[in-house]
Amino acid sequence: MKRGLLFIVTAPSGAGKSTILDRLLEIFPGMEYSISMTTRPPRKGETDGVDYFFVTGKEFEDKIADGEFLEYATVYDNYYGTRKAFIESRLDAGKDIILDIDVQGALDVKKKGYPAVYIYIIPPTMAELRKRLEGRKTDSREVVEKRLSKAAEETGFYGEYDYVVVNDDLDGAVDAMRAIVVAEKCRPSGIGDAIERFLGK
Amino acid sequence: MKRGLLFIVTAPSGAGKSTILDRLLEIFPGMEYSISMTTRPPRKGETDGVDYFFVTGKEFEDKIADGEFLEYATVYDNYYGTRKAFIESRLDAGKDIILDIDVQGALDVKKKGYPAVYIYIIPPTMAELRKRLEGRKTDSREVVEKRLSKAAEETGFYGEYDYVVVNDDLDGAVDAMRAIVVAEKCRPSGIGDAIERFLGK
Repeated sequence: MKRGLLFIVTAPSGAGKSTILDRLLEIFPGMEYSISMTTRPPRKGETDGVDYFFVTGKEFEDKIADGEFLEYATVYDNYYGTRKAFIESRLDAGKDIILDIDVQGALDVKKKGYPAVYIYIIPPTMAELRKRLEGRKTDSREVVEKRLSKAAEETGFYGEYDYVVVNDDLDGAVDAMRAIVVAEKCRPSGIGDAIERFLGK
Repeated sequence: MKRGLLFIVTAPSGAGKSTILDRLLEIFPGMEYSISMTTRPPRKGETDGVDYFFVTGKEFEDKIADGEFLEYATVYDNYYGTRKAFIESRLDAGKDIILDIDVQGALDVKKKGYPAVYIYIIPPTMAELRKRLEGRKTDSREVVEKRLSKAAEETGFYGEYDYVVVNDDLDGAVDAMRAIVVAEKCRPSGIGDAIERFLGK
């Protein structure tokens, strides 16, 4: 079984990340989203082990103490985190994993030196991002301004990523993401088996 | 003008490199082959500055002394080399350049720390390579054996390359090469202009 690759994807809210990633998962049937662990109670229709791994605060904090998380964060008094053992088992099963986290989480994983492909997605301009966020009509003016300021701040870290995909056109952005996946599968570290086959070993 | 990228491509004789590269150049109109400088006399139909830059031995050796070459080699008593100034001017003109050289040449360029994307192309198996070389009916048995042994030896250096493309199926190999080009154009080092446009600077 050829080991899968971990793709860490960050994008400002409104960049079109979910649409792009859903399209990517249609292209690569062996690709799946990482499943986070959280202390937030399950909502109606959510299944443990499918949407999230639901645990208590005590369980989560024990795992923090044991260093089980690649990254974790607190959002509205709830913990959310990615367990290293979960990622490892899926990669070992040959799955490519998409881990959709913010800049802080991505930098935490990178600091740990965990092998992954880091991708940052941006919309073409801040003006376009404002248009998309305002077009949603779900966020207050204040929330929109907050998201825009976070987008500008986070984008300052683009140099920490392996790739930056500009979502000025959905098909182009999906093609670029697909290209990154195909290219990363040609890395020498992952094709030892092809070399051995070539040399007839 | 966005600066182009340099792609250094190596493949054993018979790997199908020329076919793949010709297809790649059809896909990317802004891509072109590097033009070597040589002391070999022009053959009928060859044009200076198109097929090669033709120079005398004295001229070539002066340029070696001046450190003008990214790499050079001697083949049948003639020099062949790639001038750094030529590559620079084409990259500055926004062209992506394919430099098709052997492992020794590629390692020479890499040792100089010159920024480039290193790609190694292999056929699926040595048996298939033998079949392709014997199928040409142009090489003597001895030459075929020499090429096979060189292929096995050179492939030992695959880990020095950024990417390895296995040409088991032409369309798949062309798609992988295209993906590498598209992905490399998403590198943060090359998209400063997109970031500035996003931030409205």
